[in-house]
Amino acid sequence: MVIVMTPNATQTQIEKVNKILAEYGFAGHMITGVNRIVIGAVGDRQAIASLGLETLAGVEKVVPIRRPYKLVSREAKEENTIVHVKDVAIGGDAVTVIGGPCAIESVEQVMRAAEEVRRCGGKILRGGAFKPRTSPYAFQGLEEEGLKIMRIAGRFAGLPTVSEVIDEASLELASQYLDMVQIGARNMQNFRLLQAVGRARIPVILKRGLSATIEEWLMAAEYILSEGNSQVILCERGIRTYETATRNTLDLSAIPLVKELSHLPILVDPSHATGASRLVKSMSKAAVAAGADGLLVEVHPEPCRALCDGPQSLDPEGFEVLMKELAPVARAVNRLM
Amino acid sequence: MVIVMTPNATQTQIEKVNKILAEYGFAGHMITGVNRIVIGAVGDRQAIASLGLETLAGVEKVVPIRRPYKLVSREAKEENTIVHVKDVAIGGDAVTVIGGPCAIESVEQVMRAAEEVRRCGGKILRGGAFKPRTSPYAFQGLEEEGLKIMRIAGRFAGLPTVSEVIDEASLELASQYLDMVQIGARNMQNFRLLQAVGRARIPVILKRGLSATIEEWLMAAEYILSEGNSQVILCERGIRTYETATRNTLDLSAIPLVKELSHLPILVDPSHATGASRLVKSMSKAAVAAGADGLLVEVHPEPCRALCDGPQSLDPEGFEVLMKELAPVARAVNRLM
Amino acid sequence: MVIVMTPNATQTQIEKVNKILAEYGFAGHMITGVNRIVIGAVGDRQAIASLGLETLAGVEKVVPIRRPYKLVSREAKEENTIVHVKDVAIGGDAVTVIGGPCAIESVEQVMRAAEEVRRCGGKILRGGAFKPRTSPYAFQGLEEEGLKIMRIAGRFAGLPTVSEVIDEASLELASQYLDMVQIGARNMQNFRLLQAVGRARIPVILKRGLSATIEEWLMAAEYILSEGNSQVILCERGIRTYETATRNTLDLSAIPLVKELSHLPILVDPSHATGASRLVKSMSKAAVAAGADGLLVEVHPEPCRALCDGPQSLDPEGFEVLMKELAPVARAVNRLM
Amino acid sequence: MVIVMTPNATQTQIEKVNKILAEYGFAGHMITGVNRIVIGAVGDRQAIASLGLETLAGVEKVVPIRRPYKLVSREAKEENTIVHVKDVAIGGDAVTVIGGPCAIESVEQVMRAAEEVRRCGGKILRGGAFKPRTSPYAFQGLEEEGLKIMRIAGRFAGLPTVSEVIDEASLELASQYLDMVQIGARNMQNFRLLQAVGRARIPVILKRGLSATIEEWLMAAEYILSEGNSQVILCERGIRTYETATRNTLDLSAIPLVKELSHLPILVDPSHATGASRLVKSMSKAAVAAGADGLLVEVHPEPCRALCDGPQSLDPEGFEVLMKELAPVARAVNRLM
Repeated sequence: MVIVMTPNATQTQIEKVNKILAEYGFAGHMITGVNRIVIGAVGDRQAIASLGLETLAGVEKVVPIRRPYKLVSREAKEENTIVHVKDVAIGGDAVTVIGGPCAIESVEQVMRAAEEVRRCGGKILRGGAFKPRTSPYAFQGLEEEGLKIMRIAGRFAGLPTVSEVIDEASLELASQYLDMVQIGARNMQNFRLLQAVGRARIPVILKRGLSATIEEWLMAAEYILSEGNSQVILCERGIRTYETATRNTLDLSAIPLVKELSHLPILVDPSHATGASRLVKSMSKAAVAAGADGLLVEVHPEPCRALCDGPQSLDPEGFEVLMKELAPVARAVNRLM
Repeated sequence: MVIVMTPNATQTQIEKVNKILAEYGFAGHMITGVNRIVIGAVGDRQAIASLGLETLAGVEKVVPIRRPYKLVSREAKEENTIVHVKDVAIGGDAVTVIGGPCAIESVEQVMRAAEEVRRCGGKILRGGAFKPRTSPYAFQGLEEEGLKIMRIAGRFAGLPTVSEVIDEASLELASQYLDMVQIGARNMQNFRLLQAVGRARIPVILKRGLSATIEEWLMAAEYILSEGNSQVILCERGIRTYETATRNTLDLSAIPLVKELSHLPILVDPSHATGASRLVKSMSKAAVAAGADGLLVEVHPEPCRALCDGPQSLDPEGFEVLMKELAPVARAVNRLM
Repeated sequence: MVIVMTPNATQTQIEKVNKILAEYGFAGHMITGVNRIVIGAVGDRQAIASLGLETLAGVEKVVPIRRPYKLVSREAKEENTIVHVKDVAIGGDAVTVIGGPCAIESVEQVMRAAEEVRRCGGKILRGGAFKPRTSPYAFQGLEEEGLKIMRIAGRFAGLPTVSEVIDEASLELASQYLDMVQIGARNMQNFRLLQAVGRARIPVILKRGLSATIEEWLMAAEYILSEGNSQVILCERGIRTYETATRNTLDLSAIPLVKELSHLPILVDPSHATGASRLVKSMSKAAVAAGADGLLVEVHPEPCRALCDGPQSLDPEGFEVLMKELAPVARAVNRLM
Repeated sequence: MVIVMTPNATQTQIEKVNKILAEYGFAGHMITGVNRIVIGAVGDRQAIASLGLETLAGVEKVVPIRRPYKLVSREAKEENTIVHVKDVAIGGDAVTVIGGPCAIESVEQVMRAAEEVRRCGGKILRGGAFKPRTSPYAFQGLEEEGLKIMRIAGRFAGLPTVSEVIDEASLELASQYLDMVQIGARNMQNFRLLQAVGRARIPVILKRGLSATIEEWLMAAEYILSEGNSQVILCERGIRTYETATRNTLDLSAIPLVKELSHLPILVDPSHATGASRLVKSMSKAAVAAGADGLLVEVHPEPCRALCDGPQSLDPEGFEVLMKELAPVARAVNRLM
């Protein structure tokens, strides 16, 4: 941490900061600037932050220097983490496409979607059984019934399966039926859920919160890793900005940044990011070109009949075109598909 | 809903929209504009939205007209809701100040804080026992031990008590020891928690999410009311914007807006909003002048020793000055204090 | 500046940074941390920033410590600046209300507005002659004709006058006819215009840009002061955020922050901030309670006939109520009105 | 426009709206909903908006339906516009890369940059002579001297040239020396400058404002086209969001959106968007994959000596690698390079 004193800080005020640092065992290095003193404090960021030095008279601000995450950092583990979901490896040479409907509605719907996903080259089947909805009056998902349908459809198509969990009860159920779970944007800082998933030892996709910084997102992943589960895949799904022309603003620069800061794989969800199926293809290509390890795409056999997020779902034909056009882009950046 | 067709929509495409509307029992009214057709669809917003009309060829966008919340709306209940926490009424003529430390650290700390809060005219004691922290390595709170301390300090000072809950287990514990619970910004869309609080029949403060719109916030309250608990108090605590000079941007225009749209009381938390104790006084006055029903203020006997959020806590002297200067502002807007 | 090296920076890389610093005459102080080196560079921020140290191998980031503005800072001038517009003093004990229509439409309209403003206690007349409009097809203002109307109406009502300028030509015209000029949010970083106003020696209201940080805003004011004009009044008018329930999000915490960082007066424009006349009263009271030196309010004799921004204009009756209810709030924070 | 009445609007209030619409010659179509009336108003959006209907009692909101831009819209011109800068065509089959330093510093610097740009396949040379800087104390550019250097370097390398203009005087100078001009983000709504460029008949790059919506950006282009200049190229350069890990947030979804709404070409500036040279390569590939017509990239012979924005500039080696790796991505989306 760097403690910046105000220009008119007194000698007594400066000594008090140094005294507190010393009292708690941190080294303080004074830098005498043109018109103020700056103190470099050496030690654990969390511990120094907890001293509350900002509240002392004469202190203008405290600037953190070290990054707060440890286990998720590239410094802790240099090589890329590859997460295995059954026989699918995420984070290696291949670009992994995960497809399926936003919400599980019926056996027939998921079977048809699964078939299409597999036929076009998708590797994992997704579908929502527990739906966190803005309105209490909106369709909330088929819950356990939905998980059963997912398992059937996954086996039928020969695809591993993933679904969102929203609390410990749904996590327990999903762990029984499925191969991977997902934590949604609204629960990215539901720390109890993160800890539970950390103890669960099942691969997990952690979506970025609607207004989470990349640092907060990595800290959320740190919660999972610190409980013992390192099979974490990050997923950028658009952030909330002032722009209303798209549902969210897809932040693709998160991909190279995350790759630099962390060893975890990163996916992109172009469907939720844009909220519009007609933008999914371009953003999918952009995501792969930027270095994403895969995509999470909504595919529905009949989008205009979808109970949830129809406008952003691809129909089977749209998904087929996407997969065909995506392959050369993957090859252009030396990825398999 | 208003369905806006593209300028080049064909007659067949227009008919398809009308056919689907009719099929599901909605009335469609055509408006022939200068260069396009617009269809006004009459019926339940949620139901029409679920038809996924945006996905049809020839449809440009679907614009919602009616508000999605019902029970929280001013239309559903014209008079203001007053929430009673023991003998304290929130939402009536008086401005209610809730004070106390961010995190419960020790009996002595909370006792001292409680005494100061009461002495200066605060009506309810706050303190965190379950702390949702960005880092898994930061102090997470004293949990049940902390709730016990809160109860002791509240009884000692003769103040009702409130603390944050983060899942069903903490809610159950808090309901045993305290008079009111709080849902934090990070859990505003933790729908399972909202539903549990809705069943719990205990007064609840619902903080606005970091990037929640006012509509989403009211929908979160709707989750609680729709489960049967109408003792809900909203709390504006700053939203996330591009500005970094303050921790968050306090959105005081939310106060008159919420008063117009809903019958629920609304508080302001100037401590979390600004992140800086030296800005708390001005923002408290502004909140009361704007019509807030009360404040949630961090008060710590010794902020520079706080384990959490010291920089934004007032010391006893600062709290006393705040309360003294706040009273004439309250009177100027015809509120008691 | 603090130069943070990467954890794996080599001795050679560290020496290169120190060498460049020395070469340009800056002192570099090394701090050896737990797992990395940090270098404190002492000297002019602008000059060190221009060295481009971030681009060197082994450098992770460069963190500025000193504030970049000089003349506008509270450190440069401790006492408050009071700007005199004829016999009206802005920034002293009194709260100054500036009122009038968004756009000047006719002699009769401005005369009526001026009369109402004066009658209710407004001190300065505002009105737009050069309108920066999002659309080239929208009403662009009466230009010089409008300025003449302003002068007539101001003299008639005995009020000083202010109007927006958008380039050097309009500045020259406005300087002839009026007592103060205004730089709008869209031109806050039109540096040529800032410089021209800096040379013009006329009082100026500088509105905050739609997405300007407080630092950028103060730097824009620095442009004006650095050219010799110190009669600058800042005006907070709402910033752009994700929230769409109001036109902009009024950032009232800017008031105590600006008061702390700078000696310049600060106004609030609740009309543009909210975009809704029914929210103007609450936000005006909040602004004054937060310490604003005055308000800029839209008043139109007949808002529903306004050629520009009718929905946010108060009618004469609304303005009268505002002024009546504002006075006790001003007194409650020890301001005259 | 759709005029939404409040649920309790009276018959008289509804009639007043219809009367005003009729009075000004617009047709009003009533839709009687479940619990309120909605009126569809047919006519020019701008004209109806200017009626100020929101201010009438009983009116809840007025929702625009038609888009406000005309000449820039895809509806006005179906085929893509191709802008010719000497022999370079922007907006056709080829991806056009424009490279050069942020600021022109010396003949030697620009000559070296120009040579590298040409050698690696860049088609146009960029360099700033008039620099809009946040601080009045920062390097403001070499002005006319810089334009002369640009012309020399462009001729030397056989590349057309482009530079930013900031007012009418710099526009006039730039038109004499260069082949294309650029309007920067801070001037996107400097309407006088837009109009001047509209009259100038020189190709222009119009950068998106820091917090401009896509609609506002297209309206700014409309200002230029409406004055007679249709050689407009849009350039996405990142928008301002809460995320501070990158300088701005690059909004690549703007590419397919703009392509859908308008016939104008669109470039991406990954250097300003990210503010970090190490992120430029990934974002460049993503931009091309998303359908961008080209890139605007900062290239400096020695970034660590740059007087402006060194940290985001590529060195010649970095630019060479970028161009090599970009070519297969362009081919993968059927573009030449």
